[in-house]
Amino acid sequence: MSSAYRLKLVPGEVLFREGDAPTTAFLIESGCLRVTALREGEAVVLGDLGAGALLGEMAVLDDAPRTATATALSHCVLTPVDRKQFAERLESADPVVRALVFSQLARYRSTLATLSGNAAPPSFESTLQRAEAEEAHDKIRLENQLREALELHALEVLLQPIQDIASGRTAGYEALTRWHHPQRGPVSPAEFIALAEETSLIVPVGDYVLDEVCAALQHFATLAPAHPPFIALNVSGRQLQDESFVERVLARAQAHDVDPAQIKLEITESLVLD
Amino acid sequence: MSSAYRLKLVPGEVLFREGDAPTTAFLIESGCLRVTALREGEAVVLGDLGAGALLGEMAVLDDAPRTATATALSHCVLTPVDRKQFAERLESADPVVRALVFSQLARYRSTLATLSGNAAPPSFESTLQRAEAEEAHDKIRLENQLREALELHALEVLLQPIQDIASGRTAGYEALTRWHHPQRGPVSPAEFIALAEETSLIVPVGDYVLDEVCAALQHFATLAPAHPPFIALNVSGRQLQDESFVERVLARAQAHDVDPAQIKLEITESLVLD
Repeated sequence: MSSAYRLKLVPGEVLFREGDAPTTAFLIESGCLRVTALREGEAVVLGDLGAGALLGEMAVLDDAPRTATATALSHCVLTPVDRKQFAERLESADPVVRALVFSQLARYRSTLATLSGNAAPPSFESTLQRAEAEEAHDKIRLENQLREALELHALEVLLQPIQDIASGRTAGYEALTRWHHPQRGPVSPAEFIALAEETSLIVPVGDYVLDEVCAALQHFATLAPAHPPFIALNVSGRQLQDESFVERVLARAQAHDVDPAQIKLEITESLVLD
Repeated sequence: MSSAYRLKLVPGEVLFREGDAPTTAFLIESGCLRVTALREGEAVVLGDLGAGALLGEMAVLDDAPRTATATALSHCVLTPVDRKQFAERLESADPVVRALVFSQLARYRSTLATLSGNAAPPSFESTLQRAEAEEAHDKIRLENQLREALELHALEVLLQPIQDIASGRTAGYEALTRWHHPQRGPVSPAEFIALAEETSLIVPVGDYVLDEVCAALQHFATLAPAHPPFIALNVSGRQLQDESFVERVLARAQAHDVDPAQIKLEITESLVLD
């Protein structure tokens, strides 16, 4: 089917030239194109692209002129890709992923310019907005510092009592995790737990809290063996996805000589919405 | 603060060498590093990287050996970035964004090899798993075909009657959008509406449906002027974010001489969960 949404090229036809203003990117459906760039005034083959490859997607990301010329080697069928298809998906991506894309883009352009002899060794400069890159870098740093806090045993697990009004006794506790960051001061659990949930870092964080909870239950058993309290702790979807989760909870309870019934697992809302 | 999560380099110190197995990536906090690669046996400067730049992130994405050597030009402080921090975020990214990252990565490696004279012009080969790339390409194609269907007026808006049991009359209709894809046959609205909602393509799709609905209401008015029915149609969060949405609804109603009260906007669940 030929249409405005399918582009056909005959052998030798130029799709775009180095220096052109970018309009769209392309997905190669069939055929083969040669990508060339001028190096010290001479066309150098950068590579050939066949079916299934994306082409010209870099220029649409940052609106920079085409860095290479693409010429059909055979009859080709291409699907044009609107810049919005990339740009809008990137906008809603994690800032760290976005930083990765733009960092790669800057590196590619810079290296190409250097090796093509078209420019003096440039300073790599990301096209990502400065503030946006900072957001990504802050996440990376905070995540690293959270790993460090785990190793240094610097997360605090506080126990908030839950009163049984009828008996007047403390029936149990809710475990609340607190992080006092050495530079930033207290970091909200909403922030650092959400960050940990973005990757599997939530698993060691959860294990850390579980360890503290079991140790506390063991301690309470020596204080009031007749009325062992429970402790409730939050569990995220990502922890439950881990097949060994239940085994690990049971193993830790056993290691601390704690009845697993004393541990209440509370499923966080993020799981329910997933 | 110096720790395992901060790395310090002195001038002249090599962070990693071309050909090394990758372990981690780095975020440069302060200082400057020079990136060099061997080209026909000679070290060529690819660029210098300063504070705020990512370094070595490509090798951790696909586990390939380092393509360049990084050497400190001054005293440097780096934050190491665990491969999981990138890999796990990429896993949960949109397949189109993932395809973009791996396509760029393949292009960079291939171009670097070609221009360094380290290899014959290679065929660009994405490191992204084939099946995964296919998923991204399918989305790109389907999205393009949906744009085309809009232009060709190929989406069908069906009206499902809603009966008023007391009066026995048809009180109104629910508008249901159907797409009969020329090659695939019927595409589920769950699939194509979700796809359109990933980008602003949902806006013209919504306008298309609104036009059809207004035309139908105008037609009904000529058939049964005494009992104008309503038509309910789904509206997504992204359409509502568009500031001109209400104006556009009113303008279209007016253009078709339709009372806006006959148009019922139903907010889809995806908005409520956002």
